[in-house]
Amino acid sequence: MEKKKENGLVLDGKQSGRVINGPTNPMVTPLLNDLYQFTMAYAYWKAGKQSERSVFDLYFRKNPFGGEYTIFAGLEECIKFLANFNLTDQEIDFVRDSLPGCEEAFCDYLRGLDCSDIEVYAISEGSVVFPKVPLLRIEGPVAVVQLLETPFLNLINYASLVATNAARHRFVAGKSKLLLEFGARRAQGPDGAISASKYCYLGGFDATSNVAAGRLFGIPLRGTHSHAFVSSFMGLDEIVDKVLRSSDGKSTCEDFVCLVQSCLTKIQNSSSLQGIFSETNQSELAAFISYALAFPNSFLALVDTYDVMKSGIPNFCAVALALNELGYKAVGIRLDSGDLAYLSTEVRKFFCAMERDLKVLDFGKMIITASNDLNEETVDALNKQGHEVDAFGIGTNLVTCYAQAALGCVFKLVEINNQPRIKLSEDVTKVSIPCKKRTYRLFGKEGYPLVDIMTGENEPPPKVGERLLCRHPFNESKRAYVVPQRVEELLKCYWRGNADEAREELEPLKELRNRCIKQLENMRPDHMRRLNPTPYKVSVSAKLYDFIHFLWLNEAPVGELH
Amino acid sequence: MEKKKENGLVLDGKQSGRVINGPTNPMVTPLLNDLYQFTMAYAYWKAGKQSERSVFDLYFRKNPFGGEYTIFAGLEECIKFLANFNLTDQEIDFVRDSLPGCEEAFCDYLRGLDCSDIEVYAISEGSVVFPKVPLLRIEGPVAVVQLLETPFLNLINYASLVATNAARHRFVAGKSKLLLEFGARRAQGPDGAISASKYCYLGGFDATSNVAAGRLFGIPLRGTHSHAFVSSFMGLDEIVDKVLRSSDGKSTCEDFVCLVQSCLTKIQNSSSLQGIFSETNQSELAAFISYALAFPNSFLALVDTYDVMKSGIPNFCAVALALNELGYKAVGIRLDSGDLAYLSTEVRKFFCAMERDLKVLDFGKMIITASNDLNEETVDALNKQGHEVDAFGIGTNLVTCYAQAALGCVFKLVEINNQPRIKLSEDVTKVSIPCKKRTYRLFGKEGYPLVDIMTGENEPPPKVGERLLCRHPFNESKRAYVVPQRVEELLKCYWRGNADEAREELEPLKELRNRCIKQLENMRPDHMRRLNPTPYKVSVSAKLYDFIHFLWLNEAPVGELH
Repeated sequence: MEKKKENGLVLDGKQSGRVINGPTNPMVTPLLNDLYQFTMAYAYWKAGKQSERSVFDLYFRKNPFGGEYTIFAGLEECIKFLANFNLTDQEIDFVRDSLPGCEEAFCDYLRGLDCSDIEVYAISEGSVVFPKVPLLRIEGPVAVVQLLETPFLNLINYASLVATNAARHRFVAGKSKLLLEFGARRAQGPDGAISASKYCYLGGFDATSNVAAGRLFGIPLRGTHSHAFVSSFMGLDEIVDKVLRSSDGKSTCEDFVCLVQSCLTKIQNSSSLQGIFSETNQSELAAFISYALAFPNSFLALVDTYDVMKSGIPNFCAVALALNELGYKAVGIRLDSGDLAYLSTEVRKFFCAMERDLKVLDFGKMIITASNDLNEETVDALNKQGHEVDAFGIGTNLVTCYAQAALGCVFKLVEINNQPRIKLSEDVTKVSIPCKKRTYRLFGKEGYPLVDIMTGENEPPPKVGERLLCRHPFNESKRAYVVPQRVEELLKCYWRGNADEAREELEPLKELRNRCIKQLENMRPDHMRRLNPTPYKVSVSAKLYDFIHFLWLNEAPVGELH
Repeated sequence: MEKKKENGLVLDGKQSGRVINGPTNPMVTPLLNDLYQFTMAYAYWKAGKQSERSVFDLYFRKNPFGGEYTIFAGLEECIKFLANFNLTDQEIDFVRDSLPGCEEAFCDYLRGLDCSDIEVYAISEGSVVFPKVPLLRIEGPVAVVQLLETPFLNLINYASLVATNAARHRFVAGKSKLLLEFGARRAQGPDGAISASKYCYLGGFDATSNVAAGRLFGIPLRGTHSHAFVSSFMGLDEIVDKVLRSSDGKSTCEDFVCLVQSCLTKIQNSSSLQGIFSETNQSELAAFISYALAFPNSFLALVDTYDVMKSGIPNFCAVALALNELGYKAVGIRLDSGDLAYLSTEVRKFFCAMERDLKVLDFGKMIITASNDLNEETVDALNKQGHEVDAFGIGTNLVTCYAQAALGCVFKLVEINNQPRIKLSEDVTKVSIPCKKRTYRLFGKEGYPLVDIMTGENEPPPKVGERLLCRHPFNESKRAYVVPQRVEELLKCYWRGNADEAREELEPLKELRNRCIKQLENMRPDHMRRLNPTPYKVSVSAKLYDFIHFLWLNEAPVGELH
């Protein structure tokens, strides 16, 4: 195994001649595991069962956020985990000390463990996915597969949840808006922040403020300044170096402060703005000027430290105009409080009035960014009220998935030693679908996906143009014939132990993001709407249906009505 | 700086002769930051303001979970961040490339940055804390302090939130119950899982199932097995090695399976249990026997894979009895579904009946563990219904803080160059309390804390037995005289740059946990109750009150009614 380390981050892991690219989180070791995965491994080993070939499905039971779709994410991290799976001697010592009565020979067993006997089939990361359909099918020695359960669930649950949350925010904001993830400070821990940035980008966000995530994953970075920056200035006399070269480098403004002040007067006297504001806050103006002197090419100011319309906007416009005179173009403003619909509309009017009155090309088109505790609902409410916001900066609600903080993926045994296993429950939604399965997505004439179907491993695949009976796995009366116009097999092999052939390559984050955006665009609109969306259908083949119910009967306790 | 690395985790960081103990999360670098902290640092630097002495307060505005208290956690991680603060050349290159027009000299400035000019005063970690009172006061060069904002908020927000959540679960479960954190699979990312385990322990949990957290922080580990373990067995013939030595090592049972079967028959025939169950599930029995053979000293079984009362409990009891005959003591069971109040009561009756009928000492006292999507409300509901649960395993709702997934700590400039700064807002709860402050907790006759008070840095401290006017910071009419029986200064110095003297030592996690438990016990009960708790009072001195309102008037925009 070759590794390049920097700051503790493994930047490349190599396994059996294949390089697994991208950063690996060093917290993700085999000890990131529930103790009982190790106690079970030990019990399997003691019973001589540790190598029995098992098949587990990883899936979820319910879409999050009251919606009818989920974005699958976290697969790459799982594959990297497999590639880097090994227990150090110190870790093995710790496991031994944690298992009462643990025999030394078990430690030798752990020492030799790797994932060369594991096969993982998965839906492509970034896909739109649905309840009950396996996101991953994991095959291998039962003791080893059980050691993957907790890390895989950990790596997929949050990744998929936050990617879905991001996709939902994108849906409500619309394609044309810029979506910025601003969550680092409120995320659930440092890695929560970094994962959030990664998977929000995958789910359709445009950029993040998180520098570490930008660096690790190549996500575009955005950010302006905070209120503290504005408050840290007392007045214009603090600005010592007032010189600014023009954008083309051909001339030099010796006193940018003076230029800004003259622009402010121009604004005050402009025909349509007369009397709208009087004196602006001078420490705010000093802060804006300083920021513009540092970033003349990308000036974006937070305008609500004092009063948006009476101070922030006039101050910003004065600086923007002065920059304009030197050939620069200001980017825009950010609003972080107040009535965002009203303020954004007023700000746009102000910008447009300036473009008209002062003849500054494109001044009316400057970017208005809104932040301040935004979420799906508030963006939706803004849309209904009408607003002029171009970019949304979304933090807390997005990254902590405030509306629903967890996705409940489970990891269920469906076959061992070629014997199918079913987990029954009084709650029918918790009954597992047994057998090693194949899964397909069937597409209709309009190109929309119609239904996902699970079949036994050895059933012939659905054929284009051929009528196929799709059954609800547990409800006898729910069934439909479908004639697919296109059939896509969902589970592909992403890990096949040491065998290198025929394994899907991990794709760059940007590709996953493109897949996500494309698949979402291709969904039938009624599955996507926020209010009462139509559930997407998930089915089993007639043969699998019969088999499930045959097993169910056999497993149910005597005399019980399950 | 001396560092010992293992698996990418820095286990010891040393700074200026002081060892900062314990593991450091390698994801926590200065790049775990919002881009705008760097753009501001650059703008400060361009304006020549980078070294201006600033004071920032870190505090929250509202207690989480509808409660009236919060547990402060995350301090140790902040101090470690300071001790390890440095930007690598690659990181600096990345920052340069992310800042448009960044001058090379700024990179030199970044290269020389450390936290030797920073002072941090903080409330002791594990303390009960309240809104508006600074948890940390951070002093130092403004550009450096701003680079601490996002990492500190990230490290404290979730830590304090989840510790508070744990404390609330402890409160409702009561002192006598065992509380186990089972959240690794549902936590928000790998580090979310590890932080959750750490801070749930701090907040009063007894153990975790998370092996990595157990190892990193010395938290007791607990865990049993999963449904998959039970499902993986087909029948008793799978058990090959049936030998079990007795607990004292003096005798050997050659066929433990046979012994269990005879115990099962005994149970079936025992006077008070006759007819309660008939045939138990044999694959479940096989799984239990295998687990007991692996862990005869700590046998704890999950009993709800098939049917708790008809299969799981009789099977468990048969194995427990057989173990008992060999001198071992089974630990108990876990219930992971169904009506936990009813089932736990029925299970207890069953255990007690067995103790009575079969004369097995303490059999009735075996531990009943409950899991399955538990939270504050469900534990409270169980208490109201009456139950026999001894231990709660709590996962998703605990670690993701499902009821409220974020705490909103903020980081506000309160002074720069010895000038006080106030951040106004139309929303009075968002107005910051200016000035470098001291804070005290005043205790009454009964020993309860009465009120927290903030004063200016140079005001004389409150004195025991002396009448003191405590004012609401923003509401003129809210004021009260208090005669403290004890006064505790809250902010202590935890970081003083390179100066080693007079700095608080970081305490072991167990000490923080003890502080948390002790302080919670010492709160007046009406602040703690779940329904409509009384808010704890947070106040300012008369002098600080006057100063806040003097500044407020001066800062408010002309003609505005704030």
